[in-house]
Amino acid sequence: YLRAVRLRKTSLLILALAFIAGSATLAYALEPSTFGTWFNALYWVLTTMATVGYGDYYAKTAAGKTFTIFLYIFGIGLLSLIIGKIVDSVAAIHRQREAGKL
Amino acid sequence: YLRAVRLRKTSLLILALAFIAGSATLAYALEPSTFGTWFNALYWVLTTMATVGYGDYYAKTAAGKTFTIFLYIFGIGLLSLIIGKIVDSVAAIHRQREAGKL
Amino acid sequence: YLRAVRLRKTSLLILALAFIAGSATLAYALEPSTFGTWFNALYWVLTTMATVGYGDYYAKTAAGKTFTIFLYIFGIGLLSLIIGKIVDSVAAIHRQREAGKL
Amino acid sequence: YLRAVRLRKTSLLILALAFIAGSATLAYALEPSTFGTWFNALYWVLTTMATVGYGDYYAKTAAGKTFTIFLYIFGIGLLSLIIGKIVDSVAAIHRQREAGKL
Ligand SMILES: [K+]
Ligand SMILES: [K+]
Repeated sequence: YLRAVRLRKTSLLILALAFIAGSATLAYALEPSTFGTWFNALYWVLTTMATVGYGDYYAKTAAGKTFTIFLYIFGIGLLSLIIGKIVDSVAAIHRQREAGKL
Repeated sequence: YLRAVRLRKTSLLILALAFIAGSATLAYALEPSTFGTWFNALYWVLTTMATVGYGDYYAKTAAGKTFTIFLYIFGIGLLSLIIGKIVDSVAAIHRQREAGKL
Repeated sequence: YLRAVRLRKTSLLILALAFIAGSATLAYALEPSTFGTWFNALYWVLTTMATVGYGDYYAKTAAGKTFTIFLYIFGIGLLSLIIGKIVDSVAAIHRQREAGKL
Repeated sequence: YLRAVRLRKTSLLILALAFIAGSATLAYALEPSTFGTWFNALYWVLTTMATVGYGDYYAKTAAGKTFTIFLYIFGIGLLSLIIGKIVDSVAAIHRQREAGKL
């Protein structure tokens, strides 16, 4: 059972990394002059998925804006899922330490 | 029972699409020079509902700002509901595949 | 029992409105030249509590930034609570209508 | 049992304060000219963790942007955990007062 849970977490992480890398590649392909480098496109994808949106980078073409809307609908849920899993993992480690101390 | 759930999901989607299209139309009617096109108003409505807020578009008149506040109160909850449903659906498909593989 | 629930919702709404109005008044008092009008300070408070943060208004003084941090810690939770209650209410009305139709 | 819960809340608060202060120190060390003062770096860290992201401050170097991505993955979950605990505490105090009144 524990192994199945670990498999699920690993496949979720692989899915998320593939989604993020693919989104950065597509964003950079759609608007190379907006981002300048692939790393900046990656940074913008994560800034969008985290809903921070500083405004230092944003899509300027209709195609780029349409892809941004796609990122809102699929990317935000995915990153909040990942953040939730990390909070759970940290909380579990924390509880184990507390239990060890008491 | 499954059919009732599907009906509920469909009617939620129709409600959301109508809300988004109506909001874009109203935003564009209130501040045409801010958005330039209806598509840009739609992009701004979704940027607001996703709480990303790049700052490339924002309301400038008191009427536009009042409508923005309305979007905060009703739009953010609606989009996070939709994102939650999508996460659930993706997770369900994911679980079925995992179950098929094991 | 239902009356107690309604009382709690009403008192939460009064608390939220007082918090929002008080925050706008304090923000406007701290940085009148940043906001120009009390309504703009109110718009900025709600833009912050909704975590949208367009960047059209933001605190410039150390006192204003300290108050902004206070808004992050107490305001964001409060508005997301209100949005959650509204989603629940709309979902409840929706369910009643669906039940009526079937 | 109650004492264990209180211990956990205190250690979470200490963890969060250490994370926030350390992040501000690192951000200021990475990009001193972006922030100007340590307090501005702290304000930016909290603006990022709260996902508000006004855009008045943002990382400009690759190192700074990489640290920003780290903040998205670990900081956002931590601050939303803290905000959730505060909402629970305020709701608990609220319920006790209501119970006292009835
Ligand atoms: K934001
Ligand atoms: K923003």
